[in-house]
Amino acid sequence: MFDHLSGATRLFPIIGDPIKYVESPMRLTRTFGERGFNGICVPMQVPAGDLDAVMAGLTAARNVDGILVTMPHKFAAFAHCAASSERARMLGVVSVVRRNPDGTWHGDMLDGLAFVKAQKDHGAQPQGARVLLLGAGGAGSAIAIAMLEAGARELIVHDADAARVSTLRDLLKDLGQGRVNVGPPDPTGCDLVCNATPLGMEDGDPLPVDPALLTSSMFVGDVIAGHGVTPFLAAAEAAGCRTANGGHMVEAAQDVMADFMLQKADASKD
Amino acid sequence: MFDHLSGATRLFPIIGDPIKYVESPMRLTRTFGERGFNGICVPMQVPAGDLDAVMAGLTAARNVDGILVTMPHKFAAFAHCAASSERARMLGVVSVVRRNPDGTWHGDMLDGLAFVKAQKDHGAQPQGARVLLLGAGGAGSAIAIAMLEAGARELIVHDADAARVSTLRDLLKDLGQGRVNVGPPDPTGCDLVCNATPLGMEDGDPLPVDPALLTSSMFVGDVIAGHGVTPFLAAAEAAGCRTANGGHMVEAAQDVMADFMLQKADASKD
Repeated sequence: MFDHLSGATRLFPIIGDPIKYVESPMRLTRTFGERGFNGICVPMQVPAGDLDAVMAGLTAARNVDGILVTMPHKFAAFAHCAASSERARMLGVVSVVRRNPDGTWHGDMLDGLAFVKAQKDHGAQPQGARVLLLGAGGAGSAIAIAMLEAGARELIVHDADAARVSTLRDLLKDLGQGRVNVGPPDPTGCDLVCNATPLGMEDGDPLPVDPALLTSSMFVGDVIAGHGVTPFLAAAEAAGCRTANGGHMVEAAQDVMADFMLQKADASKD
Repeated sequence: MFDHLSGATRLFPIIGDPIKYVESPMRLTRTFGERGFNGICVPMQVPAGDLDAVMAGLTAARNVDGILVTMPHKFAAFAHCAASSERARMLGVVSVVRRNPDGTWHGDMLDGLAFVKAQKDHGAQPQGARVLLLGAGGAGSAIAIAMLEAGARELIVHDADAARVSTLRDLLKDLGQGRVNVGPPDPTGCDLVCNATPLGMEDGDPLPVDPALLTSSMFVGDVIAGHGVTPFLAAAEAAGCRTANGGHMVEAAQDVMADFMLQKADASKD
């Protein structure tokens, strides 16, 4: 899959801890290759307390053109960015950084964008849609921003934790312009239903939405990756819904990240 | 050539500046693969003034198991090693470092070993040999040590710079035990003739040895890489000598480095 490794290869480490389960080294490297770009994504296991030292070292290495950031560094890495996208600043987190012309870092948070791209790739139309978002944590917040950026008509947010919902509503005030509402986990009348809760990671988890309320006109997405078709998506498919799963989101993320790293306009508007 | 890149891949950066012409990313990575080891050598362009920052970052990254060191860092990187081989200490340089169990670095200088391995791979017998070494600089010094370690009976050193010869002779006093002599560039009576001068890098360079003095019983080696068969080696072949060129040394270096990185006994005795 990668036959052009050489001294001229550009580096894009992914930093996190643990790191051994990440898929970007294989996937993003393959995407670079498909675009004719000699770049490689390599894993770097970086404990929380070592972020500053590793960022200093990677900043000094001239052929490191970008860094993918995963847990536990998404908040701390934001502080290493001299510039960032509006959505990264809203959340105070970055999932990726790339070089500015002066060698400093420009950060962005692409997780929500990857989720929305996966929905669109599988037939959803966020533009003008009424969206039910389940989960107002880190993933949910990123998806909320991306759905509003993609032109959702209304975003209904549900989370069992009322404080989280309230924080997210405040965060979205400017971007939302009255489009954001808080509601129960009822998809009735919605075009898109998005699970951004951890429900589905464990056997026996309750479904985030009563499946009897799903109808075939709804598009149902799930952030849960690595668990195949979750019970929630299985119920959605049984109701005739089209779906996109967490694996599709991981897949879509490669294109979004490659666009960002290679500075294509769509992924990096800010 | 490399189809098992994943989050579990172990990293072996090669640091230097310039870096784009190094061959180890492709070659050492392939050698790791042939040994069934999931490791990758990636280039890192590190200017001289940035070594400390990059070493600190690489030290903090837990899946960096070793570092290849090339110009301009071979001297400075020695100071980053908590332990090193005797030959690295003699020269005050390292070409490779690997992790000690406590996370610090163990350094070694493998260039001479790689040269000797290339000679042996192509039929030379350093053990008990009378060796003429042309050039007492960095490469020559490393080869001198490796030839003595490999059991050469006599090592005759020639360099146009008398001070360099004298420095090398002092350096080799303990290891040489009377086996080291200084002499003219005359291979008469020698089994091995080693060019460690830069002669052969430029068109029109004089030959390091009068080719009329070469006989078919001699084995002739050259450190010059990337220039194909040098005029010196062409003359040696015309005289019926067996030869090994700088490309063979680069090839042999991958096995020697893989042995060292994977902590096999032969390459790391110290």
